[in-house]
Amino acid sequence: MPKDATLSTASVTTGPLPASRKVYVAGERFADVRVAMREIALSAPDEAALRVYDPSGPYTDADAVIDIHHGLLPLRAGWIAARGDVEACDGMAVHALPLIEGIRTGRQPLRARPGCAPTQLAYARAGIVTPEMEYIAVRENIGREQARQARDGESFGAAIPDHVTPEFVRDEVARGRAIIPANINHPESEPMIIGRNFLVKINANIGNSVVASSIAEEVEKMVWAIRWGADTVMDLSTGADIHATREWIIRNAPVPIGTVPIYQALEKVGGVAEDLTWEIFRDTLIEQAEQGVDYFTIHAGVRLAYIPLTARRVTGIVSRGGSILAKWCLAHHKENFLYTRFEEICEILRAYDVSFSLGDGLRPGSIADANDAAQFAELETLGELTQIAWRHDVQVMIEGPGHVPMHKIKENMDKQLAVCGEAPFYTLGPLVTDVAPGYDHITSAIGAAMIGWFGTAMLCYVTPKEHLGLPDRDDVKAGVIAYKIAAHAADLAKGLPSARAHDDALSRARFDFRWRDQFHLALDAETAIAYHDETLPAEGAKLAHFCSMCGPKFCSMKLTQEVRDLAASGMAEMSEKFREGGGEIYRAAE
Amino acid sequence: MPKDATLSTASVTTGPLPASRKVYVAGERFADVRVAMREIALSAPDEAALRVYDPSGPYTDADAVIDIHHGLLPLRAGWIAARGDVEACDGMAVHALPLIEGIRTGRQPLRARPGCAPTQLAYARAGIVTPEMEYIAVRENIGREQARQARDGESFGAAIPDHVTPEFVRDEVARGRAIIPANINHPESEPMIIGRNFLVKINANIGNSVVASSIAEEVEKMVWAIRWGADTVMDLSTGADIHATREWIIRNAPVPIGTVPIYQALEKVGGVAEDLTWEIFRDTLIEQAEQGVDYFTIHAGVRLAYIPLTARRVTGIVSRGGSILAKWCLAHHKENFLYTRFEEICEILRAYDVSFSLGDGLRPGSIADANDAAQFAELETLGELTQIAWRHDVQVMIEGPGHVPMHKIKENMDKQLAVCGEAPFYTLGPLVTDVAPGYDHITSAIGAAMIGWFGTAMLCYVTPKEHLGLPDRDDVKAGVIAYKIAAHAADLAKGLPSARAHDDALSRARFDFRWRDQFHLALDAETAIAYHDETLPAEGAKLAHFCSMCGPKFCSMKLTQEVRDLAASGMAEMSEKFREGGGEIYRAAE
Repeated sequence: MPKDATLSTASVTTGPLPASRKVYVAGERFADVRVAMREIALSAPDEAALRVYDPSGPYTDADAVIDIHHGLLPLRAGWIAARGDVEACDGMAVHALPLIEGIRTGRQPLRARPGCAPTQLAYARAGIVTPEMEYIAVRENIGREQARQARDGESFGAAIPDHVTPEFVRDEVARGRAIIPANINHPESEPMIIGRNFLVKINANIGNSVVASSIAEEVEKMVWAIRWGADTVMDLSTGADIHATREWIIRNAPVPIGTVPIYQALEKVGGVAEDLTWEIFRDTLIEQAEQGVDYFTIHAGVRLAYIPLTARRVTGIVSRGGSILAKWCLAHHKENFLYTRFEEICEILRAYDVSFSLGDGLRPGSIADANDAAQFAELETLGELTQIAWRHDVQVMIEGPGHVPMHKIKENMDKQLAVCGEAPFYTLGPLVTDVAPGYDHITSAIGAAMIGWFGTAMLCYVTPKEHLGLPDRDDVKAGVIAYKIAAHAADLAKGLPSARAHDDALSRARFDFRWRDQFHLALDAETAIAYHDETLPAEGAKLAHFCSMCGPKFCSMKLTQEVRDLAASGMAEMSEKFREGGGEIYRAAE
Repeated sequence: MPKDATLSTASVTTGPLPASRKVYVAGERFADVRVAMREIALSAPDEAALRVYDPSGPYTDADAVIDIHHGLLPLRAGWIAARGDVEACDGMAVHALPLIEGIRTGRQPLRARPGCAPTQLAYARAGIVTPEMEYIAVRENIGREQARQARDGESFGAAIPDHVTPEFVRDEVARGRAIIPANINHPESEPMIIGRNFLVKINANIGNSVVASSIAEEVEKMVWAIRWGADTVMDLSTGADIHATREWIIRNAPVPIGTVPIYQALEKVGGVAEDLTWEIFRDTLIEQAEQGVDYFTIHAGVRLAYIPLTARRVTGIVSRGGSILAKWCLAHHKENFLYTRFEEICEILRAYDVSFSLGDGLRPGSIADANDAAQFAELETLGELTQIAWRHDVQVMIEGPGHVPMHKIKENMDKQLAVCGEAPFYTLGPLVTDVAPGYDHITSAIGAAMIGWFGTAMLCYVTPKEHLGLPDRDDVKAGVIAYKIAAHAADLAKGLPSARAHDDALSRARFDFRWRDQFHLALDAETAIAYHDETLPAEGAKLAHFCSMCGPKFCSMKLTQEVRDLAASGMAEMSEKFREGGGEIYRAAE
């Protein structure tokens, strides 16, 4: 099918989730900060509607007009322009293509003015609170005012505040403990933050390969992934139309977009790793930075000397980028050019406020290879590179594994914190066993929940197709939901204020037999409803005091209600009698 | 549909899993101990076939003749008879029903001879190694001889041997640290053990409710659950035909069967909890013990005085049994009769070697209620009851939660070990968040993996339908696979010898592009194959050095092979040159 035909008929999933509406909360410092949230209506008179963090953008706003041919409105354009430190440039020749007519007309890429560092890190260090920072503070505070619970959690030394102020956001960014991926050429993105002292975030990978998938499918996958809760999306396309695919994704993305630029560079040299050059890679970085990519995975830690450390591994090098660079290093017998040119790369990223995602090209690809010398040697190098990037005012996060058995997960977090100066950790899973291809969203959600609890700031999802094929739409959703579970479980365990409000609201609905509220509060209302309706499809069953699992006579929730009624009608009196009659079996509440 | 019609057309799933065959390994002490295992053939000449633990019974033996109308062969009948401590009895009147013609003709239930204790615990304490114990030792040792790895794990104080001897099994049972659920009236079961120093086991719940499901479906669910790896099955039927359903399940079950007898007792009083009596309950225990139930969930720890401790909970009492007994206690304002009659219950269980699964009727049903006073008060009572049961030579395991956030999971395990004398812990999940109905196999697999690692001996599965409806066949499989993942991840993290052999075999297959071996080694080969074939269905793709995820140019495994070839052709020489040229970037292997 010709590309234009594909796109002209392309549509994406829009509309609110069940019982939900988009609300916008104004900031206090900046007049045009309006923070998007999702509000879930509940049916009980004494239950306030629940507001939840919502990365889905205008697609779930009933009032928004969506046209992927025009892209999203440039929310941050005014903020970026107002700082006065960027200028329009002609851009790389490839941009001359009118890829998206409505967007490209009259718009040129931005870059830093000479001598300027238009990065959130530079602003933070200079004591400047940006509109992005206020947006994030409002967003991270959702539900904290109303949180009923005292703090309850184990954060392993994190510094989670009761209330997030814009100043706190600024301070965390200034310290390098959090990043705000926000390319000046991606004004469509709604500001978000990745850091250990904020809500745990999740990333969804999409991208076509030469074997499968079209551009239109990839745009829909992005919209679909954020609908279910992905906080950032990585476009890992490796096939044809890599530039065009990315353009469509970025122009329509309200979340930060990450890429692995070496994939496109390799396309440019016909897939022959040995033919890669610094110049081709550099131009690819600039091309993608001008398009608006918010973070780049850069495998600068795959050093020549570490490659022999992988020789006896069960699964060698499993990172695509890592293996490309290892091949280049060995073929030329030279140090990795991403390492030797690292300062030049920093200069490019600074000019657009692209964040580093320092890639773990030597991550373990099997339980046998976890926490080995190759992996930790690279991690130490990533720590050195973090310091260099920070000197250039460039934001940094660090990628982590991979395949790790449970007893070796915490060592990963502890070592990353120790050697990378508390830069945010961003892990793929980890998968806690190798034996379940087809279910690696589960094997990895176990590891992801744990490492998220220990301090990882963002969890890269794994879909059921991992190791087997390219994920389709259903796989993307399965991966996102599994990771929303892992991230939320981590938030709960860390004791993040207000995290429990969602659980408690759902559990109250469950106990009260407010079936519809229970469904609407679920991470995936549609599936919950479908499962319930398989056995009890009648409308009346949604008001029933039981489900098909136990039937009406055996429902513990119903029985407990009866117990409470019984107890209320004379518990104190009967309890008194009981103590008189045989006090030894009475036990006071602790 | 009349019941007979249903059953006469009933069939169950049989036949080996892909590339697998059933092998039987002889014991050394007992001539008729032949331990069933699954052997997975591999295609590489230097890869030995992998033997794995296999609870699926004769259903996966290509040579077995299966007829559910006749039930399985009574493997243990000779061992039971030879001990000379049991005698046939007339049994309860209900048994007169010729429920399964081939089985019932000429067969009477067994019970202990007067003064005898035909329990594995009594034998163990007397220093007797039973055939059951040898069977278990052979079974638990699968792969240990060939295990290539040094011990690698964190077992939190467990005492896992390098090699399991029958004497070790005996000793663990004698100490009460492990149980062998093996009712003398369930000779069809293949012996298995539940204890912290053995492989972590999983249980699958099945059972119809008044709303859905038939007997034939339940038998198939049992066969289906063990096909995918369930080590025990609980029949939680609450609807009509509760006795007949159980009879069909037990006679066809090669794994221990557990029940919650209070469900049937409640059926007998028309569903009115207040009408329950000790006599009805006692007769139900005997009826089920005579049928061959291997373990009973008994909610004897739901004491009257603890009920007020649940009053302020978000979700009250969520255990069905717990809520039934709480209602009885309050209605009569009397102590729980399961508690006051506990010694009499012990006498019944001893006479048939039914094991206790001491129920946690006050387990938390929401994150908000985790680790509260009600839950831990009950746990302490379960510890007291454990000591009483042990005095009667009755085997005991302890049930645990439920809904628990990650940071509160370990406290559950530590407290259970401390107050229950190291009796095996058997937990339901726990679910680490409440917000994902429809995905609670995942929310709970996270908690299950962790608590299994910490020391829980058996993990009760949760299906995607939890909180929403009765699981169907697909849900049973989804739950079992999620829990096989959790249990295996726990075995790996505990450092159980040979646990990693499975992961390593699969990862070697993956790295070598032996696609078929990778599929066959997967916990669910069918799903792995189906996912792979969605994008690359051609037969040739199963020999290809890539998959649709990355395509041929980008496959890291393929690139790594090329890296290894390059390295082998001159790495040492080039590395030498490299050190001469700029040694500061060389890093020796650690």
